Order: sequence, then C-alpha cells, then structure tokens
Amino acid sequence: MYNSSSRLDSTTVDRSERQYNFSAGPATLPEEVLQEAKDELPVYDHVGASVMEISHRSPAYDKIEESAREHLRALLDLGDDWHILFLQGGASMQFHQVPLNFLPEDGVADYVVTGRWGTKAVKEARLLGDVHIAASSEDDDFRSVPDVADWDLSDDAAYVHITTNETVNGNQMTDDPVLEVPVVTDASSEFLGRPMDLEGYGLVYAGAQKNLGPAGVTVVLVHEDFLQRRTQPLPTMLDYGTHAERRFNTPPVFPIYMVEKVTRWLRERGGVDAIHAINQRKAAKLYDRIDQNDFYQGTVAPADRSIMNVTFRLHDPDLEPVFLKQAEQRGLMSLKGHRSVGGIRASLYNAMPEAGVDALVSFMDAFEVAHR
Amino acid sequence: MYNSSSRLDSTTVDRSERQYNFSAGPATLPEEVLQEAKDELPVYDHVGASVMEISHRSPAYDKIEESAREHLRALLDLGDDWHILFLQGGASMQFHQVPLNFLPEDGVADYVVTGRWGTKAVKEARLLGDVHIAASSEDDDFRSVPDVADWDLSDDAAYVHITTNETVNGNQMTDDPVLEVPVVTDASSEFLGRPMDLEGYGLVYAGAQKNLGPAGVTVVLVHEDFLQRRTQPLPTMLDYGTHAERRFNTPPVFPIYMVEKVTRWLRERGGVDAIHAINQRKAAKLYDRIDQNDFYQGTVAPADRSIMNVTFRLHDPDLEPVFLKQAEQRGLMSLKGHRSVGGIRASLYNAMPEAGVDALVSFMDAFEVAHR
Repeated sequence: MYNSSSRLDSTTVDRSERQYNFSAGPATLPEEVLQEAKDELPVYDHVGASVMEISHRSPAYDKIEESAREHLRALLDLGDDWHILFLQGGASMQFHQVPLNFLPEDGVADYVVTGRWGTKAVKEARLLGDVHIAASSEDDDFRSVPDVADWDLSDDAAYVHITTNETVNGNQMTDDPVLEVPVVTDASSEFLGRPMDLEGYGLVYAGAQKNLGPAGVTVVLVHEDFLQRRTQPLPTMLDYGTHAERRFNTPPVFPIYMVEKVTRWLRERGGVDAIHAINQRKAAKLYDRIDQNDFYQGTVAPADRSIMNVTFRLHDPDLEPVFLKQAEQRGLMSLKGHRSVGGIRASLYNAMPEAGVDALVSFMDAFEVAHR
Repeated sequence: MYNSSSRLDSTTVDRSERQYNFSAGPATLPEEVLQEAKDELPVYDHVGASVMEISHRSPAYDKIEESAREHLRALLDLGDDWHILFLQGGASMQFHQVPLNFLPEDGVADYVVTGRWGTKAVKEARLLGDVHIAASSEDDDFRSVPDVADWDLSDDAAYVHITTNETVNGNQMTDDPVLEVPVVTDASSEFLGRPMDLEGYGLVYAGAQKNLGPAGVTVVLVHEDFLQRRTQPLPTMLDYGTHAERRFNTPPVFPIYMVEKVTRWLRERGGVDAIHAINQRKAAKLYDRIDQNDFYQGTVAPADRSIMNVTFRLHDPDLEPVFLKQAEQRGLMSLKGHRSVGGIRASLYNAMPEAGVDALVSFMDAFEVAHR
C-alpha cells in the first residue's frame, strides 16, 4: 500500500493512498493495525456494537484493557511492583500531576532540561513548589544533553525529572540514570522504541500519539514504592493512587483499544529489542546521509542525537520550503521542523518502515543533485 | 442492519450484527457515522494517512475541529460570547476543574444534589473549598428533583452546580434555572438531547460518551463573562482560559473527529428540536408501557423522569436477571441498571432509533405474558 520508490520520479502522488508519514505526533501507525480497526467497524468481535459503544465495565472492554497491560508488561519485562495506568491529558497534564503528587510543600524537585518539553515541565512544577535546575542545555540551544556526571543534584530532592527524548529538539539520552532519588521521565517520543532499564525510575510517562497509538491516552508506569510517597489528600482524578487501585472513571476506550493493537503488533515483530535494532539502522541511514557533506546539517551533537526525531537544516535555509514541498509531492509527508525551531524533522517511530527512510534518503540525494 | 422485530421470536441473535444498545455510556452511535469512519480508514480524505496519524496543527485537523465547533454553535444557537472547549478526563475531571477555577478560597459554591454524579461533584469541590448543599433528594434515594423554588441558595455563591440529568438515577430537570449567580451543569447524559436555555448558565460540561461521541473528549461551553471570574494562577492544563485562548496541547483527535460526525448527523436530521420530539416520543412509549400495570415499576417520580435514562424495576426482583438475559438473547443489549442501584436501565440517547424502543416494549409485553 505504501508508494514504491519509483514514485519518487513522478511529480505528484495519489494522496488517497498512504504516504510515508514523518509526523512527530500524532504519528504514523502500523497499517495492519489500522486495517484491523477498520475490519472491526461497525461491530467489534461479536458484541453487537462497535468498541466505541460498549460499556467500560463490560467483559469485552475489560479484556482489551487487560490485554494492553499484558503486552506492555511483557514488552518492558515489568514486575508486579509496577502499575500501568491509562490516563488522559498527555504529557502536558503529567507536568502538573507529577509535582502535585510528589513535590511536598517544603521539598524540592530536581529538573534536567534538555529541550522544549522539559522547559514546559519546569514551568508547571514551579506553580506548585520549589524546583532546582540540576542541568540544562538551554545555552546550547538544546543541541546536546548534559552528562549525568555533571548534573548538580540536590541532596534531598523528591525526584529528578528528565526528558529522555526531546521531540522538538531531536536529542536523546543514551542511558537510563540510576540516582540516589527516584527518576521521573517524559518518555513520550521514545517509549517502546528502545529497551529501558527501569531500575532508577519511579515513574515513566508517555503520550501515546508518538510511538504507541492515537492521541487521547497517556501511559504511565509508576513503581509501587514511589507511589506510596505521594502527598494526600489529592483531587481524585489527579491522584495516581486512584487509577492504580481501580478503573475509577470512563477511560478513553478507543485510544486504549488502539494501544492494545500496536503493542500486540510490536510483540509479534519481536518486541523492543528487535524494533530497537531496526530503529538504530533507520536512524544511522539518515544521519549518514546528512553527514555525507555539508549540504544537509544535523542540528544536534552526534553523541546526543535522537534515533526517533532526526532534526537537520539545509546549508541554504531558503531551500527548506522547496525541499518540504517537493518531498510532499513525492509522498514524504510532515517533514517540517517544529514551528519553534524550523528546519527539517523526520520522526522515525517504530511504525515507520525502513523503506520510508530509504525513500527519504533517495529524495535527499536527488534534491542535492538538483540544488547543489 | 438492526435486527427486525421478528428476531424477537427467535431465541438468539447473531451478535456479529448490530444490536439495539441501551448502554448508559459509552453508548450507541449512529450507524451512518460508524460507517463513514470505517470508510475513512486507512486514509482520511486524501491526506495520505488516517485521521489518527496527522498533526493536530495540520489544515486537515483544523478543519475537523472547526467544523465540530460550528455544528455545536449552530445546534445550540451559541453566540460569540460562548467558548467551546474540547477537554479530556470526562465529568470526573470537571468535578475538580470547576471549583479549581471558580471557587475562591474565601468563597462558597452552592451544589444541588440529585444523584450519584452530583454527589461525586460535591466530594471533589469540598477538597478545594466551602460547599453549601442548596438542595438534595438523597433522603428520597434520588427518586425526585427538588423544586427550584425550594433551593436554599447562598447570598454570595461563586456559582450553583447542578446535574440536569442524572444518568444512574434516571431523573432530569425540566427547566434550565436562571438564578442570581451563574449556574454550572453537568449535562453529560442529556447534552443535545433537548433544547437548552443557556441564559442562566456560566458553564456547561458533557462527557461525549453518552450522547455525542466516543469516550475520551469532554465538551465544555463556558461563557466569556464567567470565564473572566476564574482565579489565577492555575495549572496551565486545568485553566479553562488556556483552552479558550488557543489549541494548547494535543487534543484527543479521534474522539473529536467522531463528535464532528455525530453533530453533523444531528444537524442533518433537523437539529435539537427535531431530535427532542423523537426523544420525548421514545421515552413516552417506554414509560407508558412501564405504567401499564405494576409488573414493571418506574423508580422516579413521574414529573422528574429522565427522557434519556429510563430506570425501572420488576415487581419481582428475582425476575430481573431472567429479564436481562432474555433481552440480551433477543438483541436488546446493556439494559442492566447501574451496579449501585440495580434494576433495569434503558438509555434512549439520540442515536437510539425509535424502532429500538418499540422492540424493547414488545419484549416487555411478551416477558410479562410469560412471567405474570
């Protein structure tokens, strides 16, 4: 169903067919998953109604949510001491919910800021309490990630908040830090894209719309020990304990149903280690093309480059709109960099086929020849 | 596609076909809407990807959200002084968000409690400030709605919170109150099911999964004058002003896309007045059957009965599981009352065809004959 690379020679593609979609989120999903969702309309699995119309207390929905949890548990090798929650509001709500639960009035939380999302997390935490910036690469325009050895950590932080992959800026941490205090990470744009060592974490959150499903659900992993440190009382809906204990409110059924399918798809393809190998290969192909000469220029220090969100510029910024327009005409969509930083961004999430990266590299070669 | 009433004579139905779905929410959706969503997978309207995979800053998504807003504005005849927000977390999050924005530290809010949902709203508001119960029908097991003339309103309440339709208990207010202070209502299970006189309201909220779309989006109408009364500063995501001003975060794209379709469907069928007439007729048919004799017994005082959620018991409670099982076998699904109150509940939202009510009434007749 994807365009063959021969399409690259034509000037336009049929947009009623699927394109290679490099959107940073909402982002491309496995076509098999979309096909299955299509097949299950307007009636889901002999329940007499679509999945959107059945009670969230029904056995059919129970099974979907439990299956999604089981897939996640298997993919990340999660023990019983980890709760898996399906919340709403994306990372933006987590920016509030994390300090609301875990930053005591007389305490401090350490934040490591490596991009636009971490900056937003700090802003929300500061509305609630004392925030200490343990490290930041803002002076470097977030082109790098400060080394963990250089983080200026507080003696008694309630937690250390990091962003293991910065979607807008295109950097990624290579290690999962293990510190004196629990680490909280916004893993939205890398979740399930690489193996995670969960030892140092107290809480991991990820908006689904990058690597996991459609927008509308946030996966939160919270460790039982960390959970017990939260302050009380809390608003019921914003208390992680509410959702760890039971299905309190109506969950976003359709997005969770899609997460179940995507995580099942990932297990069928060999799990996180297998997809990580493919992700590394995809990213290497694109960075190698970028680094070939100075026609294209990566924006992030090589050691800190993200394998999920590849950001680069053209040596001549005036060519960027031309590049984006021609790419779109050739079936390579949503390559525009975030409005706050400009340039080009190719998001290579799990569901982006390697052939999509090959098509992009071919286009970049041809574009260079035409515009050198 | 629905089962013909002749199906009532057979013992079981094919559950790979659509049943009459009386679920209280998530609830039945118009079949045409589901078919359109199916047709638009895996590629939406020539954009090269499904609607779940495109950027929430893309022109295609902009058009969907603007169209949903336009339909709502037309259906409710909303002026420019009303903001239409698409939030997350359902009514449960609104229980926190309303007092967080509008209940000042030294102020009081009046709450009128007519059922399970209003009770929950009070619990959340009390975590934040001073709540005065202006009226409650709890002593009557929420079988009625206190008359507005009897409400014991504070002189200086920040707002009066009501629940115009109580989904679990099956009661509904017949008038939209106009009071000295702005009224806030949880209209989840009646939204767009009857014309609303918005004059007295400051804010109206509705979880979509009853009468409006799938779970995962909450429609909030907030009047500009009321919005300006909110306290500051607020957490960004929980500040209604954030969302009134701009699209701040990634919205739940797919649920909003479905709301656009459902509201368009409703406009095509003549709008709220037209559906209200049908809803009244559907409810009258069912209540007439219930009131025919004492085999079935309505649980709510006749003047306060909901046209959306019809709650009743059988004269012999031991027959209720039999009733539910046989109804299910005849293609009448999800008739079980809420676990907190038991009995039978038939939710007759906009998307429930009149033929579904006819089928239910026929079944009730036949069941009475068999078990009298």
